[in-house]
Amino acid sequence: MAELRREPITRMWVVVTTDDPKGPSDYLAFKPPYQRQETGGLCPFCPGNEGMTPEETFSLKSEGGGWSVRVIPNKFPFFRIEGGFDRRPEGMYDVMEAIGAHEIVVETPDHGQSLGFMETNQIEKILLAYRERLTDLEKDQRFQQFLILKNYPGIFNRHPHSHILAMPVVPRRIDEEIYGTLDYYQRKERCIFCDIIKEEILMKKRVILETVHFLVFSPFASRYPFESWIVPKKHSPDFHSINEEEREDLSVAIQSLFVRFYKLLSNPPYSFAFHTSPIQSRFHRSEYHWHIETRLRIGLREGFEWGTGFFVNPTPPEDAAAYLREVG
Amino acid sequence: MAELRREPITRMWVVVTTDDPKGPSDYLAFKPPYQRQETGGLCPFCPGNEGMTPEETFSLKSEGGGWSVRVIPNKFPFFRIEGGFDRRPEGMYDVMEAIGAHEIVVETPDHGQSLGFMETNQIEKILLAYRERLTDLEKDQRFQQFLILKNYPGIFNRHPHSHILAMPVVPRRIDEEIYGTLDYYQRKERCIFCDIIKEEILMKKRVILETVHFLVFSPFASRYPFESWIVPKKHSPDFHSINEEEREDLSVAIQSLFVRFYKLLSNPPYSFAFHTSPIQSRFHRSEYHWHIETRLRIGLREGFEWGTGFFVNPTPPEDAAAYLREVG
Repeated sequence: MAELRREPITRMWVVVTTDDPKGPSDYLAFKPPYQRQETGGLCPFCPGNEGMTPEETFSLKSEGGGWSVRVIPNKFPFFRIEGGFDRRPEGMYDVMEAIGAHEIVVETPDHGQSLGFMETNQIEKILLAYRERLTDLEKDQRFQQFLILKNYPGIFNRHPHSHILAMPVVPRRIDEEIYGTLDYYQRKERCIFCDIIKEEILMKKRVILETVHFLVFSPFASRYPFESWIVPKKHSPDFHSINEEEREDLSVAIQSLFVRFYKLLSNPPYSFAFHTSPIQSRFHRSEYHWHIETRLRIGLREGFEWGTGFFVNPTPPEDAAAYLREVG
Repeated sequence: MAELRREPITRMWVVVTTDDPKGPSDYLAFKPPYQRQETGGLCPFCPGNEGMTPEETFSLKSEGGGWSVRVIPNKFPFFRIEGGFDRRPEGMYDVMEAIGAHEIVVETPDHGQSLGFMETNQIEKILLAYRERLTDLEKDQRFQQFLILKNYPGIFNRHPHSHILAMPVVPRRIDEEIYGTLDYYQRKERCIFCDIIKEEILMKKRVILETVHFLVFSPFASRYPFESWIVPKKHSPDFHSINEEEREDLSVAIQSLFVRFYKLLSNPPYSFAFHTSPIQSRFHRSEYHWHIETRLRIGLREGFEWGTGFFVNPTPPEDAAAYLREVG
């Protein structure tokens, strides 16, 4: 079990694992570069090993009779689905149980596949799986916020997979974006993301690619080298409201961006996150504009970022966009 | 030259290097684990090679005739000292020049030394160098915020050194702490850090060590495994107001904490940051409480943290404090 503890000064929630705590020896096992290596054992995400995982919450069948995308509860969740919050004080502090959902989307049966080289119709299936799970999880009134997240390569397993999280609180980063979006709306009666899209299409220099429904660009104040955002051109607060045509178009944008990263930086490690409005009518924000943020894990300034919340980016987004446009 | 660009949604400032931008080949040179290796060339921080660095801004002489601590401007600064801000719009965005100071404190002449194994009187000298430089830099009215920061091992040079930054804006993390401190003060007319100190001394279970003037403990909502804070017991907003007796005592606390990290986790990589009140009378906050935050760079959740601003810590601070107490 894990707890959600509130940092009393900045009032940020932190998940602290209390049931299976890691001690020094767990960290020593990872020492430099503090990443687990692939063990070579059976992969629980490969076809034939389905018995090694919890029962699936969703899957799409392939023509050959197996599955093409499979969603399962995470065996090692940050948030657990059973139980109540038990909100309580601990001395001067605030704590509650870390209730939520944490599922794994196995993106393909092929252990060695990656997003930049997938058929776009496979990416469409992954997007469909995300949408179906979000639509189902939204029914649980305990959840306030979704996050779809991928780390490549996976930390514990290299088989292509991503995470779906349903969280009981809105995390800091999303909260800041919502606050900024509402503040801008109040001043201008316009969506700041919609304005950014217009500005970037006009200025051209930070655009990486444009599809019918999406703009892919390097944001003006990119925090990380080659940071790229995929934003729907039509205002919409919720990722899981996209239709089939938009899903098809988004899969083209995703495939095209990730193959560019691969070619330009020789298969770099990356993360992506879907930022989407909080759910449930009392938290939902129609002024918000859902989008995907990507980050290549090639930064070198982590100490500074950690110490200050201040980012130093040695690659201007105009350069990054030019490189990514040209390599396409 | 670098620019300070404001992220339009969350209104956070980001430093973007525009004069010597890094392209894909710069990152390829670092590939996995994306860290530079020590080249084996002449170390510019070693005695005898002083000519390789810019002229020092401060030094303490050693008994043998050389220096024992030396402060120099950083050859590759995040913030440059010359020039004006030139605040201006760029389309819908905000930008200004990254003006500030970025100095390097060479902590010892000994290339192979580290904080956990230094004599405490050497650490006192480092603290004195920090204080003297801050006192001098404070005269420059363009600066709003100091940061003292160390990454171990150093990314570009393994010779023990730390960074002093004087910044023209208050970075997000400090700003959030100040906001929280003021909000708490308004409700209680007490300092939240002072209350935390009392609470931790009473509860004992998160205390690592206590000296005459400082408390070293694992914070209740630790974001990182073995996160530890060093906090002065007496309320004070400014690190650079500490006196000689406090400095002596702080050097004992620092040495003791870092030797514990070394023993417990076999010389782990770490960062520390001094959080101290903004400077200049119009930004200074007497309600703030300066302190040192340390982070071991052994976390494995970076994608999640990046995607959400949400932290997952697999080692409860009560466990971390117990391990660190026992290993002392």
